[in-house]
Amino acid sequence: MDRVRNVTGKTKRLPRYVREQQMLDAAVQMFARRGYHAASMDEVAELAGVSKPMVYLYLGSKEELFLACIRREAGRLLDAFAGQVNQADAPDQQLWHALRAFFVLVAENRDSWRVLHQQAPAHGEPFAGEVAAMRTAIIAFAADLIDQNIRSRGVSEATEHDVSALAHALVGAGESLADWATEHPDEDPATTARRLMNFAWMGLDNLLHGSIWRP
Amino acid sequence: MDRVRNVTGKTKRLPRYVREQQMLDAAVQMFARRGYHAASMDEVAELAGVSKPMVYLYLGSKEELFLACIRREAGRLLDAFAGQVNQADAPDQQLWHALRAFFVLVAENRDSWRVLHQQAPAHGEPFAGEVAAMRTAIIAFAADLIDQNIRSRGVSEATEHDVSALAHALVGAGESLADWATEHPDEDPATTARRLMNFAWMGLDNLLHGSIWRP
Repeated sequence: MDRVRNVTGKTKRLPRYVREQQMLDAAVQMFARRGYHAASMDEVAELAGVSKPMVYLYLGSKEELFLACIRREAGRLLDAFAGQVNQADAPDQQLWHALRAFFVLVAENRDSWRVLHQQAPAHGEPFAGEVAAMRTAIIAFAADLIDQNIRSRGVSEATEHDVSALAHALVGAGESLADWATEHPDEDPATTARRLMNFAWMGLDNLLHGSIWRP
Repeated sequence: MDRVRNVTGKTKRLPRYVREQQMLDAAVQMFARRGYHAASMDEVAELAGVSKPMVYLYLGSKEELFLACIRREAGRLLDAFAGQVNQADAPDQQLWHALRAFFVLVAENRDSWRVLHQQAPAHGEPFAGEVAAMRTAIIAFAADLIDQNIRSRGVSEATEHDVSALAHALVGAGESLADWATEHPDEDPATTARRLMNFAWMGLDNLLHGSIWRP
């Protein structure tokens, strides 16, 4: 504790919450760029401008720090969706706003996407489970959006099972396109969102109107 | 070598290739159900009806065995696509045949899909890299299919960049739906393929005809 007190004495006094966020910012960057195993607590501390004991004191072990990063970034991703959808909008506008919010978030936080979609699933439990829970929430969100639009149009043939399958396809397409987008940093995220709208919506729209492709 | 010779003496004499395939079948099943770390060479040997030394002799360490499983299953998956597409067919039929072959393969080899899409990426290199190479090949295949159809229709606005993005979205949707299908073993794989055709093709078809969604 002495060493921690010495260090806090040397650095600017900031509320604990603010310090923690700075450490998490540094940690997300480290984990995304070096990978979980190679990332060091020394580097996280240095990048955050604090001492290593302070990182341990505030956020625990490297495993706990990685988990805290995953939870924060997953929460931000879910908030980005939820904050953008207004049920008074037309169905295509609802999907468009959600997708645009998603690709903007990924474009502005490429390290966050790398941690959630590339690092976390590659290091087993408890990390993979945390990301799986986020994915389940995103799929439920997509299923809700599809379901509400089906019901508002009175297309009664689609079951919960059908909606769940479509939601999985939509989310999978979005994830894959987000990976693609991280390799094309020059592309405007609204353009990426428009790509997915054009791929997915035109198909969904036909489906929701009862226009079905048959072999 | 003595122990191995003893064992081969006890078991039926089969060509080495056949024996190896049996061991790989057993290993895929073990890895898919127990996970890489928990799977034991003893169980693989028992399930394949051979001795553990024979597994080591034929296929090497557990790491090498896991890699051999990934390579065989990835090869089968790529063959399934390539074998089903006839460029003389209409574009929707080409995609339909490829998707149906994919979902049939996944339905008939759920353990194979688990190894490729759930186990391998979760255990770092060299396994993740092997699966990434397969994924790159599948995306290239999808991009080719889209590109040929664009060119045959004379829609000139689509660039290689556009085609690559669409191929990523299509493959991501397929992977996610394959995960969904492994949780719904009662569903006929042709039905799953029809779901993706309806989601993806109707959208692609509009796009290839120059019918564009705009915000």
